[in-house]
Amino acid sequence: MFDLRPVGYVIGLLVAVLGLTMVLPLVADLVEGRGHWPVFVECAILTTLGGGFMALSCQNRKSRGLTIRQTFVLTTAVWIALPLFGALPFWLGAPELRFVDAYFEAMSGMTTTGSTVMTGLESQPAGVLLWRGILQWLGGIGIIVVAMVFLPELRVGGMQVFRAEAFDTQGKILPRATAIAAQISVAYAGLTAACFLTYYILGMGLFDSLVHSLTTLSTGGFANSDASFGAFAGPIEYAASVFMMLAALPFVRYVQIINGSAKPLLKDTQVWVFLATIGVFVVVTTLVLTTIFPHHWEQSFREALFNITSIITGTGYASADYMLWGSFPIAMFFFIGLIGGCAGSTTCSIKVFRYQILFSAIRVQLSKVHSPSGVFTTRFQGRPVDDDVIGSVMSFFVFFVVSIGLLAVALGMTGLDFITSLSGAATALANIGPGLGSIIGPAGNFASLNDTAKWLLIAGMLVGRLELMVVFVLLTVQFWRD
Amino acid sequence: MFDLRPVGYVIGLLVAVLGLTMVLPLVADLVEGRGHWPVFVECAILTTLGGGFMALSCQNRKSRGLTIRQTFVLTTAVWIALPLFGALPFWLGAPELRFVDAYFEAMSGMTTTGSTVMTGLESQPAGVLLWRGILQWLGGIGIIVVAMVFLPELRVGGMQVFRAEAFDTQGKILPRATAIAAQISVAYAGLTAACFLTYYILGMGLFDSLVHSLTTLSTGGFANSDASFGAFAGPIEYAASVFMMLAALPFVRYVQIINGSAKPLLKDTQVWVFLATIGVFVVVTTLVLTTIFPHHWEQSFREALFNITSIITGTGYASADYMLWGSFPIAMFFFIGLIGGCAGSTTCSIKVFRYQILFSAIRVQLSKVHSPSGVFTTRFQGRPVDDDVIGSVMSFFVFFVVSIGLLAVALGMTGLDFITSLSGAATALANIGPGLGSIIGPAGNFASLNDTAKWLLIAGMLVGRLELMVVFVLLTVQFWRD
Ligand SMILES: [K+]
Ligand SMILES: [K+]
Repeated sequence: MFDLRPVGYVIGLLVAVLGLTMVLPLVADLVEGRGHWPVFVECAILTTLGGGFMALSCQNRKSRGLTIRQTFVLTTAVWIALPLFGALPFWLGAPELRFVDAYFEAMSGMTTTGSTVMTGLESQPAGVLLWRGILQWLGGIGIIVVAMVFLPELRVGGMQVFRAEAFDTQGKILPRATAIAAQISVAYAGLTAACFLTYYILGMGLFDSLVHSLTTLSTGGFANSDASFGAFAGPIEYAASVFMMLAALPFVRYVQIINGSAKPLLKDTQVWVFLATIGVFVVVTTLVLTTIFPHHWEQSFREALFNITSIITGTGYASADYMLWGSFPIAMFFFIGLIGGCAGSTTCSIKVFRYQILFSAIRVQLSKVHSPSGVFTTRFQGRPVDDDVIGSVMSFFVFFVVSIGLLAVALGMTGLDFITSLSGAATALANIGPGLGSIIGPAGNFASLNDTAKWLLIAGMLVGRLELMVVFVLLTVQFWRD
Repeated sequence: MFDLRPVGYVIGLLVAVLGLTMVLPLVADLVEGRGHWPVFVECAILTTLGGGFMALSCQNRKSRGLTIRQTFVLTTAVWIALPLFGALPFWLGAPELRFVDAYFEAMSGMTTTGSTVMTGLESQPAGVLLWRGILQWLGGIGIIVVAMVFLPELRVGGMQVFRAEAFDTQGKILPRATAIAAQISVAYAGLTAACFLTYYILGMGLFDSLVHSLTTLSTGGFANSDASFGAFAGPIEYAASVFMMLAALPFVRYVQIINGSAKPLLKDTQVWVFLATIGVFVVVTTLVLTTIFPHHWEQSFREALFNITSIITGTGYASADYMLWGSFPIAMFFFIGLIGGCAGSTTCSIKVFRYQILFSAIRVQLSKVHSPSGVFTTRFQGRPVDDDVIGSVMSFFVFFVVSIGLLAVALGMTGLDFITSLSGAATALANIGPGLGSIIGPAGNFASLNDTAKWLLIAGMLVGRLELMVVFVLLTVQFWRD
């Protein structure tokens, strides 16, 4: 067995920090004055002390940095342990939620999935709603750090393509993570503040602006009402679309802008492919909607823009029940959820850079087919891509699709219908939020699912958020062999 | 422009042969005595003469063999042109079918898909039913030859992995194709005869035994009644399951057995993985069915065995409406249709050897992740696999999944619902036959689809049958550049 204490130490610290942030929903509950605040006192103490003791008990060693194996265990363990403590306020504070529900909600929060098992959101205490937003916001910054520091190091899912272009901060992984997290936090918090102000100015109300800005920038998608974003038709939809797009761009580019250079952002092909993809789908869907509904074209455009941006970025807000848009958008919404945003953002799913590499590799294959003696190179951002990266990206794609299939079959075995099983599997693994169909669709809710299905979806959200390989590596025998 | 005459010559010959085979349904119609035979006289003359003239007009050149480019064009053109003539008896002989329907039926036949737009099959003339069977049987032998001779040469979809182990008959591609076709035909015809006798002995009736043996060995799945195989419950289902499995094995192994060696068959890991896969799904489904229905377990086992074998091999017969089996089998039937049989058989879809290579490659990726300095090799049948082949297989997988997505979205745009769009796309590209849902499911029919959807599915069947790349290469600009 290898030394798990450094892992426990980091997790302990993070749990303690999570406990401290519970002061914020505590304050919200106090302000609201419905008497729900003692729950957060209890949870804050439990979590802070729990994390603190864990950190202390694991600390008595000279820090020697993390090995690759410890890094794998840490990454997965963080996303298992933090939602456990994050679930406390739901479990202790909402009597209608059992443990599986509370953990589902917290996992859905920290993985920025945004599927919910809570109904009657409008009547939930302010603290609970704020806590959902905070979980997503923390999960968002967490995943950016993982994507920028851990994944390139772990060489999973083709993320090693970003090794060279990552930060210059060389050295051990944990100090580097801290340094990067600090820089990213500035951009992340700044954009969240801008989003908050925009929502507020456009008339959303203080508390809703706060929570929705947290769940917009994390592409998390938790909303404060069962109607999701349905209450905010009009200019706010445009604002949300813009901020969802901004949240889906590579955050390293924002840090570069802060440091004075906008050029890397403008030269990043991911960004343009991503925006162009949204553009194409919005135009087509607008045309379809204008022919189907007697709307003004502006409404069609707005609904198309908002809902498509929401699904491609994996945010998962819904402003309209697109299950009622006829059949074309349904198949489309299923597949655009598999696109995702840019690497190093809060988005999940397959992501644009992998499609760029895949299509370049397929083009190479096609060229080879009719010129077997020719030499062709797979490229990304103009640079040749290592065979290692191509294999990694393709494995990721295969793994992702096969995982959706297996999860869908497993969900089907629990008794769910085809659309619910299939879209549930995809929405969990791609951390989108809503599924399709009448049960878990944009107008639905995950509360009515059976417990087995909920646990399967919890596993799916975790595995998908950590780019599959990180978790699956832990399941191999070799990993644990000395 | 390059010389298309050798292509026209081969197609002309094949069309002429197709015309001659129309004598068989002509005889069937004469025997039945319903006066439908003149249609086949007309079609036989049109087709034989059309093909003959085409061959003659393209022939006046010394044969210099086919270039790679001509081979690509030939392979695709054969599967576009032959169904055109194969559709004549449907178009001229069945007044209820328009051109798109007739072409759909013929394409579905020659690609061994088995989706049908014909209803009231029981009352169709014997000649028409036999012609459907013959189209599938010819399509089946055709695709084995393509898979064994053309695809390894064209280096598409990873089929180059079978280059070394193909026949020793070296030399030009067309004489080799003829030699291989002759050897394979013996095995194919022999198995068909055995299947015919078995069906007949088990009580199927002479004509039904004939047509169903043709559509079993080709894993085509056209049946003589709207209830598909529903009329033949009992021992015949076991027999059909065995012959569908035999049809899904690599035909080169049968030729080796004829030449005295069964060892290559027994040592072929594809075969064992394929059979084990069927075994696992049959056991699980039998258990599920026994818990759902008050059946005797034998009925559950038999229905599971028959229907799962039918979908995994892509035959597409149905003995029970598995849309009524509850939700688990539905998601399962969707995904097992993406498995397919062995390379060099009449089956389509992704195929077992690709999964073997993919999983070996993913295992290598996982190993690399935790031992970055280690050296690991992707293997198939115990031998290391070229990087070129791995890239080709992975591209195929990505292409296949993306094609299903695009085709499903396109079908959705024509107004079809989600299940019909998605399963229709998959069933066409994987040449299975039935889709899912109430419209095109095992109890349904493709007749009611709109024309655009039918044309899209025709394209899907063609592209899927020719392993995608063969057709898509023709769509690249480079291909046509000199
Ligand atoms: K989300
Ligand atoms: K078939």
